[in-house]
Amino acid sequence: MNFDEIIDRRGTGSDKWDQMESLFDVSPDDGLAMWVADTDFRVPQVALDAMQKLVDHGILGYSDATKPYKDAVCWWMENRHGWKIEPEWLLTTSGLVNAVAIALDTFTEKDDGVVLFTPVYHAFAKVIKAQGRTVVECPLVRDGDKYVMDFEAYDAQMTGKEKMLILCSPHNPAGRVWTKEELSEVVAFAKRHDQLLISDEIHQDLVYDGYKHVPTALIEGALPRLITLNAPSKTFNVAGANCGHVIIPDEDIRTKFFTRKKSLGLSPNVFGVKLTQALYNEEGGKWVDALCKYLGENRKIFEEGVAKIPGAKPMHLEGTYLAWVDFSDTGMSAAEVKKRITQDAKIAATPGHVFGKGGEHHVRFNLGLPASRIEDAVERLQNAFSDLQ
Amino acid sequence: MNFDEIIDRRGTGSDKWDQMESLFDVSPDDGLAMWVADTDFRVPQVALDAMQKLVDHGILGYSDATKPYKDAVCWWMENRHGWKIEPEWLLTTSGLVNAVAIALDTFTEKDDGVVLFTPVYHAFAKVIKAQGRTVVECPLVRDGDKYVMDFEAYDAQMTGKEKMLILCSPHNPAGRVWTKEELSEVVAFAKRHDQLLISDEIHQDLVYDGYKHVPTALIEGALPRLITLNAPSKTFNVAGANCGHVIIPDEDIRTKFFTRKKSLGLSPNVFGVKLTQALYNEEGGKWVDALCKYLGENRKIFEEGVAKIPGAKPMHLEGTYLAWVDFSDTGMSAAEVKKRITQDAKIAATPGHVFGKGGEHHVRFNLGLPASRIEDAVERLQNAFSDLQ
Repeated sequence: MNFDEIIDRRGTGSDKWDQMESLFDVSPDDGLAMWVADTDFRVPQVALDAMQKLVDHGILGYSDATKPYKDAVCWWMENRHGWKIEPEWLLTTSGLVNAVAIALDTFTEKDDGVVLFTPVYHAFAKVIKAQGRTVVECPLVRDGDKYVMDFEAYDAQMTGKEKMLILCSPHNPAGRVWTKEELSEVVAFAKRHDQLLISDEIHQDLVYDGYKHVPTALIEGALPRLITLNAPSKTFNVAGANCGHVIIPDEDIRTKFFTRKKSLGLSPNVFGVKLTQALYNEEGGKWVDALCKYLGENRKIFEEGVAKIPGAKPMHLEGTYLAWVDFSDTGMSAAEVKKRITQDAKIAATPGHVFGKGGEHHVRFNLGLPASRIEDAVERLQNAFSDLQ
Repeated sequence: MNFDEIIDRRGTGSDKWDQMESLFDVSPDDGLAMWVADTDFRVPQVALDAMQKLVDHGILGYSDATKPYKDAVCWWMENRHGWKIEPEWLLTTSGLVNAVAIALDTFTEKDDGVVLFTPVYHAFAKVIKAQGRTVVECPLVRDGDKYVMDFEAYDAQMTGKEKMLILCSPHNPAGRVWTKEELSEVVAFAKRHDQLLISDEIHQDLVYDGYKHVPTALIEGALPRLITLNAPSKTFNVAGANCGHVIIPDEDIRTKFFTRKKSLGLSPNVFGVKLTQALYNEEGGKWVDALCKYLGENRKIFEEGVAKIPGAKPMHLEGTYLAWVDFSDTGMSAAEVKKRITQDAKIAATPGHVFGKGGEHHVRFNLGLPASRIEDAVERLQNAFSDLQ
């Protein structure tokens, strides 16, 4: 594990590096890619060994979700998250946006409202709209350097047309690791308004010292109306494998989800299965522990460095590598902030408005880079806004 | 390319080898797996090299359908099949059953009829039924050692409720490589009954000497109401990569398909993209040519050997590695035939009834094995039915 290693991803087909020029007008040759949420870290050796075994075997035929694969997921959930799941609760999808889409398709109707705590991962709203459902934004509230929820306001917002709630836990962007108490409130809220709760826990493993991720399923009263989503993608940087896990303890909900999934002709690819199986064990766990420690340092460098820019307020990440900076106190327009970040600092980072209400004037920065590049990014940003000093 | 090499797939997660015991009661230790439609041949070295490059690079992040990937598909279609396609006509899906499912979901309504020429690939009927549509079986007619179509009968069958026709070209099972004249009749039939034509050409590359695959799109009048499906899966034995190609020249149909696909949150995995890009070129073409020659010999051994069993009538494969044997003239029940094949010959092969009407009393055998195993299979079958001599 050498997270300091600079791996050149230019020209490899990486969305993050190969599309930054066309989308942000930032050259990969002297720019920094801090947008798409994968990291520039080498995948753990155990996973590469599993891939190597496939290459050496030389056959890439049909391979379903095998018992060793399901056992590995069960092991991981129990040993890393204290949630004992049964192998039959586990379904696979082609990544988690696909999982959200199937849930929407199965459990909501056209024009139903779907609740999001915004700003939040932009693909949720995209897929909700693409299915002809209505996005209902419940805005998170800034409390110091973190977001909190305001259920009194959310209760007042509900009309009875909201049939589903999609929670992002830990939260992307801004990296809240929701506490047990907060999750209990979310569960109570969903129950109160009779909403099926989708808990996207894709960042479950990326949590910093002093914080603890609690699977929503462990919250009293969360079951049966709960669908939990997770994946090895963020944890181990294997997003390209399109391997999504859907965990549904309730038989009725699971059967409905499975039936819809089957009618869409979806089955797992061999790579996702093999990688997960190779990663969800003690060896993989050690790697994640080291990664979190490393990312914790990146976070420190970034938050301290960016806080020195007058008017720029980074939130304090409790989990995830997706930093969230509020530029509104610079007094600049979003366009001016964008110009300085892309043209002056030469950094491709995600503009906040795509995450929904409350995202305006914010920018999301991906910290999954070698520390030297985080230092470089901080310096570039400080220079780009140096006239504010 | 050493197609004679015996690669042990037991315990690798292969559906074909690792599920044969539970499904057919045939042990992988002394049995032969001739059911699931992947082969036991090593993937071409160019593809393994591309995988090796991924392993060496060490990062498996987000990667979309890149330009080099699309260019490779265009090259293959033009140079191997004489069909010049535009890169923007190409969409990806998570395999072709998923592609059929999206087409059904987008272009048909509940209870609409969907026409199949049966017996045919069983997943079509499964996904049609799973979507609440009605399977309309137009039975193929045996003419000597091949199937032909009977459009007079099919015309009489139509009620006006049939909105889609799914063609399998080349045909699975029984390996018909439909001629230009036959395809023209299919196109005219679909037009006459106002049916959207889905042409599954996944076996397009696996055609024997003396036959030629014609893309349906090249048939006069086939466009615009045509969706062509193909993939590198069968050709290069990479089914585990879940890489499906959907080619839609018509902008309106393509936009509708794409919109539905997007609402399902589907994007390609990095492996399918990289493998296709590595395979769809001259090097890959040479490999396929050698494969077809080899499979042609397997076919000869199998057809000649099985024809010696009194009452067993193999069809003559023009393409595909999926042999189709009619056991009805043995006078035995399907159960007895199954018993002899699984328990006596110890071969796991697909019972014909799953392919629909006309499949009863037939068995499908996968010939994508080293020739020594085909010889072994023939001997086992001859012994299992030796009392008929």
